[in-house]
Amino acid sequence: MESSKKLRIGVDLGGTNIKTGILDETGAILAKSSVPAGAQRPWQQIADDIISSVKALMQQMQLTADDCVGVGMGCPGTIDSQNGVVVYNNNFNNWQNVPMAQYLRDALGMPVRISNDANCAALGECVAGAAKEYSSAVMITLGTGVGGGVVWDGKLFEGGAGGVELGHTVIETNGKPCSCGRKGCFEAYASATALIRDAVAAAKAHPESSLNQLCEGNLENMNGKIPFDAAQAGDAVAQEVINEYIRMLGEGITNMVNIFRPEVVLLSGGVCAQGENLTIPLNAYLNEHAYGAQHNPPPPVKIATVGNDAGLIGAAFLLNE
Amino acid sequence: MESSKKLRIGVDLGGTNIKTGILDETGAILAKSSVPAGAQRPWQQIADDIISSVKALMQQMQLTADDCVGVGMGCPGTIDSQNGVVVYNNNFNNWQNVPMAQYLRDALGMPVRISNDANCAALGECVAGAAKEYSSAVMITLGTGVGGGVVWDGKLFEGGAGGVELGHTVIETNGKPCSCGRKGCFEAYASATALIRDAVAAAKAHPESSLNQLCEGNLENMNGKIPFDAAQAGDAVAQEVINEYIRMLGEGITNMVNIFRPEVVLLSGGVCAQGENLTIPLNAYLNEHAYGAQHNPPPPVKIATVGNDAGLIGAAFLLNE
Repeated sequence: MESSKKLRIGVDLGGTNIKTGILDETGAILAKSSVPAGAQRPWQQIADDIISSVKALMQQMQLTADDCVGVGMGCPGTIDSQNGVVVYNNNFNNWQNVPMAQYLRDALGMPVRISNDANCAALGECVAGAAKEYSSAVMITLGTGVGGGVVWDGKLFEGGAGGVELGHTVIETNGKPCSCGRKGCFEAYASATALIRDAVAAAKAHPESSLNQLCEGNLENMNGKIPFDAAQAGDAVAQEVINEYIRMLGEGITNMVNIFRPEVVLLSGGVCAQGENLTIPLNAYLNEHAYGAQHNPPPPVKIATVGNDAGLIGAAFLLNE
Repeated sequence: MESSKKLRIGVDLGGTNIKTGILDETGAILAKSSVPAGAQRPWQQIADDIISSVKALMQQMQLTADDCVGVGMGCPGTIDSQNGVVVYNNNFNNWQNVPMAQYLRDALGMPVRISNDANCAALGECVAGAAKEYSSAVMITLGTGVGGGVVWDGKLFEGGAGGVELGHTVIETNGKPCSCGRKGCFEAYASATALIRDAVAAAKAHPESSLNQLCEGNLENMNGKIPFDAAQAGDAVAQEVINEYIRMLGEGITNMVNIFRPEVVLLSGGVCAQGENLTIPLNAYLNEHAYGAQHNPPPPVKIATVGNDAGLIGAAFLLNE
């Protein structure tokens, strides 16, 4: 089929950089560039830089629009993917109802599709990463917040505009405050930010804990790795922080499994460097708590493998119909 | 188109009765029958009764297989819709991996598709009820338990086998025990059973509350209507029960809105006789708590309108490709 030989262009618009890539049909990145996002500028200026980046890469590879399936772009915030509109994005000078896809389409003369960056990262893992062998996946990204992406039948399930906010589901009513204004969201317990918050609190409450030494006496040095390191070295206070972190992560993941029953659950984000320290207890948690697990084995929890390019790769595969 | 003139056969297999109907392309029921399910018999005997019911209705209407799109069936339990298998169902003598669709297909010579009964009810509301004007909906059924159904682009979103168990998502970690073995599920707070449990506890703790009189001195008479009646008559104890019930229902519904962002949320089940006593506070709750509500208005919460036949109608429309 001719179309399957065409190349794909992916854009990953982040708060810091605009990353652009040209990919083949297997998801391999043939050429790539990165320019500063200049996030606080008017949206048209940012869009013009995206257009320049795409054109430069195409020129570098001597491509015309006819050689390409089109352009896919991942972007933080609330995206109306069907209409190609950024409904709201507070990372970029309060974008509201920005008609991004149309603007890019007019300038580039190619089909353009946009989606949320967490969605794109999940799709990237299905194209080229840990979910390559599966047709459905839920990916949970454990970073500053908790992001979610759902792939079904090899395509994104995007919900309505502003959907698939898997991190913004309450798992402890009236619990810890969340960035979204609710209390007790999955994000407020399972993000790297939450892990660090709880480790700092435990270190303060227990001056004898090695968490304090590992931070070299300054708790501002706490990160998502230190509590795991301390626990593995036998620190009981750190072990308790980790146990509770994994339990709450397990609660949130079990909820997503009971809702979607994907073939695989993927974890991404910095905390996932812990690998089996997360997947072994989480798989055990799911086997004990997922709905009807004794008759219907739950999906495995695995670590995402693509890393930083997952969003770029997934974006390039948004145009997959 | 010829196929759009064909009739549809729906079966609603419940713990008590097998309901069968023949429907036209608008979802109108042209003929209907009901026979006892005899739920504790071997599955083949129940399937044979389903086959007899379908054949009898077809004969009554002088139809052959060529006149029909096929047969759809809703069934409680964990259903592998793609393969037509009842993975597990503890309402029917512990069915496990029952190849129901194949069995019916062999006997009836028509396409057969099966799905979970809560899914079918949601689809029925989209075909002929409160979600008729929408292409996506999440329906929450507040009964003995809390069931869920998701319709997307006019079709069921079924997840993997055993998915869309929206009631089995924890909203209060380590909370009240749920029938599924977890603690703190949405179902454990938002079912009619939970409302009754909390109203009984409040009545016991407050002998002065009119909840006791309305039960005629016997708290076994408590039902899902009494606490609403008492609250409306000014009983502060009952009002507190209702406020907390609606708050927890709001938490669970907000979670589903943040995950799916459907065009509408429907409520069904006995408690929904309360109508605006539920929808007014729940819509206010969503407007305050849904993710990004200030920039992206959440969907309305409405009461389902089809009633008991929703499952039968939805089942008949499972074959909608």
